Amino acid sequence: MTAVRLALAQVDTTLGDIAGNAALVRAWVQRAAAAGRDLVAFPEMTLTGYPVEDLALRTSFIEASRAAVDDLARDLADDGLGDVTVVVGYLDRDVSVAPGTSLVGRPAGAVQNCAAVITGGRVAARYAKRHLPNYGVFDEFRIFTPGANGLRIELPHGHVELVICEDLWVEAVVAELAERSTRPDLLLVINASPYERDKDDVRYELCASRAARLGTTVAYVNLVGGQDELVFDGGSLVVAADGSLLARAPQFVEDLLVVDVPTATTAGRATPVSAAIAEVLDPVAEVWHALVLGLRDYAHKNGFTTAVLGLSGGIDSAVTAALACDALGADHVLAVSMPSRYSSEHSVTDAEDLAKRTGCDYRLVAIQPMVDVFVSALDLSGLAEENVQARVRGVILMGISNSEGHLVLAPGNKSELATGYSTIYGDAVGGFAPIKDVAKTLVWELARWRNAAAERRAETPPIPQSTIDKAPSAELRAGQVDSDSLPDYDVLDAVVDGYVTGDRGRADLLAAGFDAVVVDEVVRLVDRAEWKRRQYPPGTKITKKAFGRDRRLPITNRWVEPTADIVAP
Amino acid sequence: MTAVRLALAQVDTTLGDIAGNAALVRAWVQRAAAAGRDLVAFPEMTLTGYPVEDLALRTSFIEASRAAVDDLARDLADDGLGDVTVVVGYLDRDVSVAPGTSLVGRPAGAVQNCAAVITGGRVAARYAKRHLPNYGVFDEFRIFTPGANGLRIELPHGHVELVICEDLWVEAVVAELAERSTRPDLLLVINASPYERDKDDVRYELCASRAARLGTTVAYVNLVGGQDELVFDGGSLVVAADGSLLARAPQFVEDLLVVDVPTATTAGRATPVSAAIAEVLDPVAEVWHALVLGLRDYAHKNGFTTAVLGLSGGIDSAVTAALACDALGADHVLAVSMPSRYSSEHSVTDAEDLAKRTGCDYRLVAIQPMVDVFVSALDLSGLAEENVQARVRGVILMGISNSEGHLVLAPGNKSELATGYSTIYGDAVGGFAPIKDVAKTLVWELARWRNAAAERRAETPPIPQSTIDKAPSAELRAGQVDSDSLPDYDVLDAVVDGYVTGDRGRADLLAAGFDAVVVDEVVRLVDRAEWKRRQYPPGTKITKKAFGRDRRLPITNRWVEPTADIVAP
Repeated sequence: MTAVRLALAQVDTTLGDIAGNAALVRAWVQRAAAAGRDLVAFPEMTLTGYPVEDLALRTSFIEASRAAVDDLARDLADDGLGDVTVVVGYLDRDVSVAPGTSLVGRPAGAVQNCAAVITGGRVAARYAKRHLPNYGVFDEFRIFTPGANGLRIELPHGHVELVICEDLWVEAVVAELAERSTRPDLLLVINASPYERDKDDVRYELCASRAARLGTTVAYVNLVGGQDELVFDGGSLVVAADGSLLARAPQFVEDLLVVDVPTATTAGRATPVSAAIAEVLDPVAEVWHALVLGLRDYAHKNGFTTAVLGLSGGIDSAVTAALACDALGADHVLAVSMPSRYSSEHSVTDAEDLAKRTGCDYRLVAIQPMVDVFVSALDLSGLAEENVQARVRGVILMGISNSEGHLVLAPGNKSELATGYSTIYGDAVGGFAPIKDVAKTLVWELARWRNAAAERRAETPPIPQSTIDKAPSAELRAGQVDSDSLPDYDVLDAVVDGYVTGDRGRADLLAAGFDAVVVDEVVRLVDRAEWKRRQYPPGTKITKKAFGRDRRLPITNRWVEPTADIVAP
Repeated sequence: MTAVRLALAQVDTTLGDIAGNAALVRAWVQRAAAAGRDLVAFPEMTLTGYPVEDLALRTSFIEASRAAVDDLARDLADDGLGDVTVVVGYLDRDVSVAPGTSLVGRPAGAVQNCAAVITGGRVAARYAKRHLPNYGVFDEFRIFTPGANGLRIELPHGHVELVICEDLWVEAVVAELAERSTRPDLLLVINASPYERDKDDVRYELCASRAARLGTTVAYVNLVGGQDELVFDGGSLVVAADGSLLARAPQFVEDLLVVDVPTATTAGRATPVSAAIAEVLDPVAEVWHALVLGLRDYAHKNGFTTAVLGLSGGIDSAVTAALACDALGADHVLAVSMPSRYSSEHSVTDAEDLAKRTGCDYRLVAIQPMVDVFVSALDLSGLAEENVQARVRGVILMGISNSEGHLVLAPGNKSELATGYSTIYGDAVGGFAPIKDVAKTLVWELARWRNAAAERRAETPPIPQSTIDKAPSAELRAGQVDSDSLPDYDVLDAVVDGYVTGDRGRADLLAAGFDAVVVDEVVRLVDRAEWKRRQYPPGTKITKKAFGRDRRLPITNRWVEPTADIVAP
């Protein structure tokens, strides 16, 4: 059978490290060569990392990327790999500009999100992404100029159409391909598609529908790894024209997915070189892996090998600590218990227990002496006194970080971020906030899942059962529990999901059956907390809409959801 | 002479307060009616405020804006103003969609930045902005769908072409207007154009060139007031076809600018109803006024009437305090001196002096007791000990704020933000950072200008001369001065301006004559401090590129400006 042997290289790049990323490409083409290959494809913006944001406005960076792709072509030939065709994403300019594109506000000219086709020691062709996502976390229309033309790659055993990420989603692109007189043997899509829950199904369905429409195989190669608030989940896949899944790479790890794609002269579906259809993780496991990779890559790519966090005995800091142990190794994590006069006894014993279970480093610093001196000097009481306790803990963690060089982790979850139920400059201090986009109810699910996973492997579950079972409390005053101030988390999380993730207004939420009193309270809290969220550390996005670059709302904002249409109780 | 009497209403709207903004429009149309008028024009997005950011994705908000513009039309007729033609900016949907526009990623459909033409108790016509800025601070392509069509308003005494802000900058729009068989008597542009230094000249020149090209009068009405990091400077203007300035509103205040625009049947230039050509402020005065308005509107629109800040005796906190006194009134400002063992004597005496000069409230809290307990409990030294001093001050200010309800002001300047020369959760705490976009050298200029302005009015200069004259120091260790750690501010500010504001790479900066050692040090510091800047409070933008939404760079970023082309010394 005639076929194109295709290798999808699902790699973890480092943003801005052009030389390092080029070396990564060489190493992976080498690996692919060992598997026998005609075509090796890398993700979108492999040479630069993704997203480059406003680095795309800097001429020195653009020129470095352009030079690197030419160097890479020569280096691959020097490596004896000149006969392989390599498709690699990078940053270029003026490749092809869509007609009618205004360059107002584009100081660096027509900068483009590009793919290079490298073969025979040179860049044989360049493609500029035509459709630029500019919603959610994406700002591509801000920094890139859309390209004008499609790109067809002729290989000895077949021909390939190339597009980049968003292009695949746009009807006009598919329509144009469908109108061609000869259909391609393969539609290759290179991507940097960030993880969010339930997205892998969407990607598969899109590929299958495009494959069916064009009567061709579709190959989708995705980036893997963490970059600030984004984590790319990999899960590269190849779908046959009949919609069946030919191959899929695992999620959250680097992988080389090799598959034989049948050409027009052959009949039948492609036969994978290896039976590589990785199983998709279950929904909670998937989140855990996303958070571990997001945290690990943030730490390592920013030069941290160790982390420190406060352990309160509660579920949020316990899950954050367990994630840190999985991401960095328990011997690279320092947990600090910082009890005050309002702390329960189990706050310390549960923290100690977690440290024993995981093997992380542990320290106890009593905060009452520091708190007392502030309270008496400033004559604080009520909320001001509560906040001082949290802020003293923040000062302690930053002091330890400054002395010992650890990354400080903030343990806030999405429910807390939404409602502002945290102390700015207190428990909110940190360089990274691993569970920032995880609703409280999902925090508990993660804890249970992680403990069960340990049990399946006959390991000690990291999180004490009493931490999972106890009623959540900030323990900033006597007898305080979260339910004094907030609706039940089941309800709270559902309303936050509708209001924040779904951008649904008040009337819409009431129509969905939520209680008006709860909706009004949650909406008020969410609106009021915008200023605090702006100063919160970054953390891994796992939902359709995370706080951060994904949801951009003004702080100064007098909009109040209309209550005129209150449904009578 | 036949003419259109035009009134430009330069108003200060409040974001999200649709009812309040509609009331503002009614009041100003009433005022304009007293001056006799055919046409009254309000700025871009007057009913909603600007920029609405992702509020534009919420259906309840869109529908409220649509309903408000219809209500406004009826209310104006009820006010007896049905015979006036009113142009007002607002948020609408599906007015006219530019062909080929993809709605991928636009969950709320074709939401548009619109202008309504109101007359006779109804909305007579609607215009959707055709060109959407999506660079710098603007994210309009993220939230809006571009419109398709121009809009011509026929008045009894002439006809008017209407565009919105960015439309005026785009050559295609002007070309289209120039090709019309009859030229308009007036090109009306409604704007929400944020202040930055030297921008008023650019606006005038643009209007003059468009006026000349079309052979028609151009009227430019701009928003005024603060909204988070932006301040709109007003300065609305009317330019005759010959490029001469017919009228200009003052900067940074609300104003009604009334002018008679000659129609096609009349010859000669328009005669202003009143000789209203406001003088442009000098470059330093302009910045001062921008900062005062930005701070005042941030505080008041967020419900604060009072502010608190730490006074170190240094120039940054002194200028911040003087701005706060001008913005909120000295009796609404609390300055707190928080000396440590490393504080000079003049740090306290200069702080006291400023409080006396301005009349602001003053308090002294010695921090050594708090610092000592942290240092001994954690055994801190070096940088960790230095930072604890700053963080103790942060806890004190937040404690006072929590007890007494003041807005906390952070005194950091742009040079400090650039280089990371501040303590996160220490001097960086605050709800607002008034001089965040002001380079250190300009901070001194502002101090001198403000003192001189006081002297011209025979008032006490607010800032002690010794504060202006002393060598800058963080006073976190014995004998410390800024010049131990940073290049001279003259050089530092120039390099930061090139690297940050100009997006110039290393080679480009060396070619401009900067010293390689200094450039490398500044570039390294700027790159390293990104994570700190993300958690810094918002502050008024005054330059072409401010830190914040204006400059979006990854935190995880291994890009290093290439040094291969180092110029030998």
